Amino acid sequence: MPTISTRFTEAFGVEHPITLGGMQAVGRAELIAAAADAGCLAFLSALTQPTPDDLRREIDRTRQLTDKPFGVNLTILPSITPPPYDEYRRAIIDEGITVVETAGSNPEEHVDDLKSHGIKVLHKCTAVRHAVKAQKLGVDGISIDGFECAGHPGEDDIPGLILIPAAADRLTIPIVASGGIADARGLIAALALGADGINMGTRFMATQESFIHQDVKQRIVDHTERDTALLFRTMHNTARVAKNAITAEVLEIEKAGGRFEDVRHLVAGSRGREVYDSGDTDAGIWWAGMTQGLIHDIPTVHDLIDRIMREATDTIDRLTALKGAAAVGG
Amino acid sequence: MPTISTRFTEAFGVEHPITLGGMQAVGRAELIAAAADAGCLAFLSALTQPTPDDLRREIDRTRQLTDKPFGVNLTILPSITPPPYDEYRRAIIDEGITVVETAGSNPEEHVDDLKSHGIKVLHKCTAVRHAVKAQKLGVDGISIDGFECAGHPGEDDIPGLILIPAAADRLTIPIVASGGIADARGLIAALALGADGINMGTRFMATQESFIHQDVKQRIVDHTERDTALLFRTMHNTARVAKNAITAEVLEIEKAGGRFEDVRHLVAGSRGREVYDSGDTDAGIWWAGMTQGLIHDIPTVHDLIDRIMREATDTIDRLTALKGAAAVGG
Repeated sequence: MPTISTRFTEAFGVEHPITLGGMQAVGRAELIAAAADAGCLAFLSALTQPTPDDLRREIDRTRQLTDKPFGVNLTILPSITPPPYDEYRRAIIDEGITVVETAGSNPEEHVDDLKSHGIKVLHKCTAVRHAVKAQKLGVDGISIDGFECAGHPGEDDIPGLILIPAAADRLTIPIVASGGIADARGLIAALALGADGINMGTRFMATQESFIHQDVKQRIVDHTERDTALLFRTMHNTARVAKNAITAEVLEIEKAGGRFEDVRHLVAGSRGREVYDSGDTDAGIWWAGMTQGLIHDIPTVHDLIDRIMREATDTIDRLTALKGAAAVGG
Repeated sequence: MPTISTRFTEAFGVEHPITLGGMQAVGRAELIAAAADAGCLAFLSALTQPTPDDLRREIDRTRQLTDKPFGVNLTILPSITPPPYDEYRRAIIDEGITVVETAGSNPEEHVDDLKSHGIKVLHKCTAVRHAVKAQKLGVDGISIDGFECAGHPGEDDIPGLILIPAAADRLTIPIVASGGIADARGLIAALALGADGINMGTRFMATQESFIHQDVKQRIVDHTERDTALLFRTMHNTARVAKNAITAEVLEIEKAGGRFEDVRHLVAGSRGREVYDSGDTDAGIWWAGMTQGLIHDIPTVHDLIDRIMREATDTIDRLTALKGAAAVGG
């Protein structure tokens, strides 16, 4: 298939300028192997595995499914009882993983250790000032995550159309545009805005190889761009998820001035993993981004990437044809 | 200067695929004439003029400043004491204006009358479903206005990265991408996403020919992408404006559950027009979009458009150079 070569593909040694970043509960061996096989840089989600030993096994399992390199995502979230991050990091290093996507707060300690083992680090963040800080820490690339994204968009609400060029104005290392991108149009837009590649999440959820139940994939297809909800705004811990009965209830409580104590029972009762397993999309809170409005099918990962790369080169040709054409028309 | 020819430039007979849409208090003769002279499709803001007769005079004044065609914006907002829209529309028709930008709710009656007089209509709206409805009414183009924009982004919060391709999937008439665009990167991104042109507002405010005080232009340059505020969310009448002392006060009241009655004194006391005249950026609530983070200078309109068109063609060449290069790098 055709490709596009950028500073990102060169620095990270990947065929296409596309990543599949960490996705809690979704970033498992089958999907990661399929994306790696299709020429993307895909990241297993470390904390989806209950223990560091499970992560070691999941890395092995992925290697049985693909000969291509892949990475591991390590997301550091503030927590009263944090997972054993150091042990997960140790598993990543011991297993000979060559590229890690860090995300969340204070990656410094992890970056230092990973870099000292020759591992490339792509740091995902949602604000230009955090990207600048990570660049100073010595990461090899930034995945800049806009307001449109599933998961944690941060509290600044800056979409990709602004965030990507604003980041490009301040960074010298390769930039991956994350959030709001699901097709070739988004890829070329991101490259025009100053990115060197794209990350996709929701788009990869709705593929044949994705672990989640067919009914969840179909729900993503059926949903429009308006079918996401921003939860926990009032708690400054915003999460973008798919709209459903639970999110309506949480938002009603938040709107009435409720605090985390008031929605805790809904969060505790949410069975997000069950959504992915059973296909009951009202069983819990589950991730999906605004790209739901741009996703109209459930292809194999190979067909998806093939289509994106073909349409991407077609889009460049279409832009070229617009250039310098006759001035004032009729 | 180089140009880019699209379905929009052809349908609307304009040199560059760039509009300067209606801007309350800012869209006056000097700026509109400068943008028209530079090859853009620029719209006087009808309701900035106190009466329909004042609009007739402003149209005449603009014609004395440029030989190029220009349009008029007519924004229909719900109001207890609405301005005499029909008389403004009559002034537009009588003056021989050939293109009108409608915006706001229920443009049907205006569209019918304008079309019957051979006037081209570009309808600005913030949601795909409204765009589809306007297309059915027979408008000639849609200006689709994303979450990033100054003014009224609507209540759906869909940024351009999603809104533009979602609109392109549903519309057959030319699309102008509005909101979040201030340079060639945004222009090419919009074209890649499926638009046929771009609209800019905040970017045109920070030009030499713009009517507003130099200190306001400098404030736009100094501001980052995070220096806007979304007011009146709780009243379902969201407005994106520049952050200042007044917006902080309004937001605090809204956050505490305040309703319009509780902020009415702040809105009534706001002297937005005085901001533009005196340069005291805390005197009132004033418009600015997220593109503040991408605006770093105060050029003439001609230099701005010349730069955008040159960089736009350079960007297409840069994209072409990425295409089909060697696969897996080092």
